Amino acid sequence: MSGTLNLDAIHRPVQAILEDQLGQVSLIFERQLASEMSAVNNLCMHVESYRGKMLRPTLVLLSGLASQGRTDASVLTEKHRIVAAVAEMIHMATLVHDDVLDEAAVRRRGATVNHLWGNETAVILGDYLISNAFHLCSTAGDPDINLALGQVTNTLCEGELVQLHHRNDYSISEETYFEIVRRKTASLIAECCRLGALLGGAEARVCLAMKRFGEALGVAFQIQDDLLDLVGDQAVVGKSLGKDLDKGKLTLPVIHHLAECDPSARGETLRMIIDRDADGLRERLLNSGAVRRTSEAARGLVEKGKSELPHLPAGRARDLLSAMADQVISRAR
Amino acid sequence: MSGTLNLDAIHRPVQAILEDQLGQVSLIFERQLASEMSAVNNLCMHVESYRGKMLRPTLVLLSGLASQGRTDASVLTEKHRIVAAVAEMIHMATLVHDDVLDEAAVRRRGATVNHLWGNETAVILGDYLISNAFHLCSTAGDPDINLALGQVTNTLCEGELVQLHHRNDYSISEETYFEIVRRKTASLIAECCRLGALLGGAEARVCLAMKRFGEALGVAFQIQDDLLDLVGDQAVVGKSLGKDLDKGKLTLPVIHHLAECDPSARGETLRMIIDRDADGLRERLLNSGAVRRTSEAARGLVEKGKSELPHLPAGRARDLLSAMADQVISRAR
Repeated sequence: MSGTLNLDAIHRPVQAILEDQLGQVSLIFERQLASEMSAVNNLCMHVESYRGKMLRPTLVLLSGLASQGRTDASVLTEKHRIVAAVAEMIHMATLVHDDVLDEAAVRRRGATVNHLWGNETAVILGDYLISNAFHLCSTAGDPDINLALGQVTNTLCEGELVQLHHRNDYSISEETYFEIVRRKTASLIAECCRLGALLGGAEARVCLAMKRFGEALGVAFQIQDDLLDLVGDQAVVGKSLGKDLDKGKLTLPVIHHLAECDPSARGETLRMIIDRDADGLRERLLNSGAVRRTSEAARGLVEKGKSELPHLPAGRARDLLSAMADQVISRAR
Repeated sequence: MSGTLNLDAIHRPVQAILEDQLGQVSLIFERQLASEMSAVNNLCMHVESYRGKMLRPTLVLLSGLASQGRTDASVLTEKHRIVAAVAEMIHMATLVHDDVLDEAAVRRRGATVNHLWGNETAVILGDYLISNAFHLCSTAGDPDINLALGQVTNTLCEGELVQLHHRNDYSISEETYFEIVRRKTASLIAECCRLGALLGGAEARVCLAMKRFGEALGVAFQIQDDLLDLVGDQAVVGKSLGKDLDKGKLTLPVIHHLAECDPSARGETLRMIIDRDADGLRERLLNSGAVRRTSEAARGLVEKGKSELPHLPAGRARDLLSAMADQVISRAR
């Protein structure tokens, strides 16, 4: 729930609306996954324990409020709540399949599906979540929403495929890194913001601003995730860490470092990457300033995203969007 | 293409229409999967080599013709062709993920995606195909089609999950076997037949008859597939065989045999299953008559399916549906 955000008291009235709405979104989510087959229900109940921050549903709802400059629930429609549940279900599907790809054992402090039931079950459960997401989306009866979210999941999968294509590519460019992240993470977050505004009746200019806001936020979010994977504390983050290095995924701190260090240091860093020496690499990235520069890049993206917000009417919902943007890069999990 | 069906000369005029329509379906399929990312295109081109019989698209188109008693292409709409391409794309996605589950190396005489690029790429490529199937489906602009196909893929995944739940269950019942097969294979084939009729403007009674026809055909098709996995010739079938036994999946011939043999023979058979003794098991199932009885069960289902056809106007399209039903169980691949 949005309750995991640690926000100032001034945001509490809008947060209360969001929490009520997120409760309704959760009901839609659970009702959609209720199956006649008990073997299927047991798996879905486990996946529901993965839901944490509910970032994507929150952005759908808050974008609906903020784009109208409103702080009352009446501006939010059933389509908002359906899209919010669909976005979370798509996100859950990517988590389940990512854990297979990463051979991860821990997610939100619990065992992953692949760890408990094997890769095969995790693959098909992810498929079941994708399928249910689209089925739920179709219940809104609005082909434009289906088209938009279908396009986004195509883009998301392309990002994952390009990322796999670049595994163990030790000369991956910053440009390719951003292309992957825009597709695999930012596209869905951007669409959540855009659809939230659109379904609230916002004009095209505002919808576009919300999309740009979401895209910048999404890229910053992924950079923070990549930083936590390198230098986070597993007990705090609550999921298996060091997976990017294990899987030969070079992320922004490493790309920054390799681009800037002198040739001999470069050779030593590559040796640490090839040897999967997580401790050595962490120290080097912290000491060289690569971690700091990566944090600054994420901060810059958050500021870029926030620069879109003046397109929206001033108000508490807009202020909360801005506060959420700041939280994305200050979070430790 | 439908050209892989070996049919009498009398069916050639309808077959010519189908082949022309299937060519258009293939174009829709390929256009949908064309990506800006070359790494993605290479994978999709490989998957397109999996397309063989095009059973599901053929059933969409032929059901459209037969339910109207027509043999001219004008009864077929763009929605028919989109649904045909979507059904094939969903089927391709299940093949790619099934090959991961089965650790299969060969499919249609070529290497599988998992064999060439690894399980991770195969998982995400399957996701990309599912996502594109739903996106393509949305381009028809008809929420009812999205709902119907979303429901079917939910059911299909449930069938796979229940099947995984019963891996190495040596006392699986015939009832559970049929429940799995109805969901994982027959549901999509049945929906192809129903939607083909519906989009051609058929009345509810005819649509329902086509759904029952497709369901019976789909179950018979899976039984034949399971038989080929046990007693087929890999060079003819063109894919890795013996996978069901390897993966602890008990199929109808084994279930029939275990239900009917005396206790000491039962113990020996279970030993062969546990030891993955494919040759011993094959001989035993052939000699005990379990293979013959399973073939008879498939034949009975085909007859049951064909008994629905008198609901359709007489004509060459209906005759071809009947001939296709016979082919499903006489095929050796």
